[in-house]
Amino acid sequence: MDEPVLLTGAGGAVGEAILNGIGTEYYWRLMFHSPPVENPNHEYVVGDVANDEDVAEAMDGVGAVIHLAGDPRPEAPWSSVLTNNIDGTQRMYEAALDEGVDRFIYASSNHAVGAYEDERKPDLYRPHDEYQLDGTELPRPSNLYGVSKAAGEVLGRYYHDTHDIDVCNIRIGNLTKGHPPIDYERGQAMWLSYRDCAHIHECALEADYDFEIVYGISDNDRKYYSIERAKEVLGYEPQDNSAHFEGEKRVVEPDA
Amino acid sequence: MDEPVLLTGAGGAVGEAILNGIGTEYYWRLMFHSPPVENPNHEYVVGDVANDEDVAEAMDGVGAVIHLAGDPRPEAPWSSVLTNNIDGTQRMYEAALDEGVDRFIYASSNHAVGAYEDERKPDLYRPHDEYQLDGTELPRPSNLYGVSKAAGEVLGRYYHDTHDIDVCNIRIGNLTKGHPPIDYERGQAMWLSYRDCAHIHECALEADYDFEIVYGISDNDRKYYSIERAKEVLGYEPQDNSAHFEGEKRVVEPDA
Repeated sequence: MDEPVLLTGAGGAVGEAILNGIGTEYYWRLMFHSPPVENPNHEYVVGDVANDEDVAEAMDGVGAVIHLAGDPRPEAPWSSVLTNNIDGTQRMYEAALDEGVDRFIYASSNHAVGAYEDERKPDLYRPHDEYQLDGTELPRPSNLYGVSKAAGEVLGRYYHDTHDIDVCNIRIGNLTKGHPPIDYERGQAMWLSYRDCAHIHECALEADYDFEIVYGISDNDRKYYSIERAKEVLGYEPQDNSAHFEGEKRVVEPDA
Repeated sequence: MDEPVLLTGAGGAVGEAILNGIGTEYYWRLMFHSPPVENPNHEYVVGDVANDEDVAEAMDGVGAVIHLAGDPRPEAPWSSVLTNNIDGTQRMYEAALDEGVDRFIYASSNHAVGAYEDERKPDLYRPHDEYQLDGTELPRPSNLYGVSKAAGEVLGRYYHDTHDIDVCNIRIGNLTKGHPPIDYERGQAMWLSYRDCAHIHECALEADYDFEIVYGISDNDRKYYSIERAKEVLGYEPQDNSAHFEGEKRVVEPDA
């Protein structure tokens, strides 16, 4: 891709993982909410996804978008996710269409479907449990942040169906650097390593598709999110598995 | 039900159909956005679903909610549906929970799934076509109004899953008084007569369920929305069918 790839929310962990892994593969334009502390070594803008002018400036000349920006807190209040996540995503899509962007990759979240866990936990966090969500299920958010992410997916469906733009929604699991979460089975089940995070976003930039909802997790033994769709359509080949870290005896099983 | 049923958007066509049909069956509190021209013969408030105080006043002492209020225009701009439909619905749910309301019936819309039609129209509007949506499919809105209605359904899923409130989303078809739409196959396929509209809302007030997404249309020969779920769970027994009006020879088939 010759045109810049706009990466919003570049200051967050997902942005860090992507730039660590594929920072030299693309011509990036980063969008930060606050001025970066260190020089990012890429073209960048500072702005707010809730501001039309900031978004238009960020989108100028862009060929593809990876939209990570938003309030990332599962406990974020409604007023914040309404503005930053729902309204901000709609503004990003409109600006992308105005600019003729071909492809929009959206950071959705496990929280869009978190309430499916209620009836089966903690069994579904364990390798023996066969239950898996695959992205065809209706959203069941576990918090208002999850509602906002599900709404972002619906916005993507609408803009894909009514305009000529490819959309990939990646329901990102639990991204941690270097090591899966400790003593947290749910996080181990949905662990996404930094290198798998970079790889799935590269796949989403390169593969042929129309509209997708996929789970962005590593190939964990414990997983209850299917990664088959990501493998099949995006060519995703995860290298990590949270089970590979369990030999360190740092995982404590709760009472059965 | 001894407590009042709050009916928001009482000045619209759906509200009119409900009150025409079951106006004497419940103790109603109507909420109007603008003062009603005629005395509604029911307790009522005038207020805005985007205003906390108005919503709290409307919700005081209520036992169940039928939430119809919002910008009803398929072509409504994003700013309006974001405020009136998405944010307004969230505010209604929060107020309902504060009040201990048991049941929330939400006026969703055919526009939440309008884009499914694109590949099959006009065949799917005709009696010979077997294709049906049944409410388990992911939303595919045909406009931003439809996005807002899909978001309202997701809010309902969240509030049902995390709080003790029954939620019924009724994807309302094409409501017209007395006669199905003329020369409009799509409207005939999703016609909802006034009496069936009142009846399905009565069913949603009376039946036992947890969380539902059903289609609110009459038993039209042309239908591409299944009404099986509404029949099975709500006990819906529609009396009307747009085909019964075709003998009037007012329906012109377009070129095959």
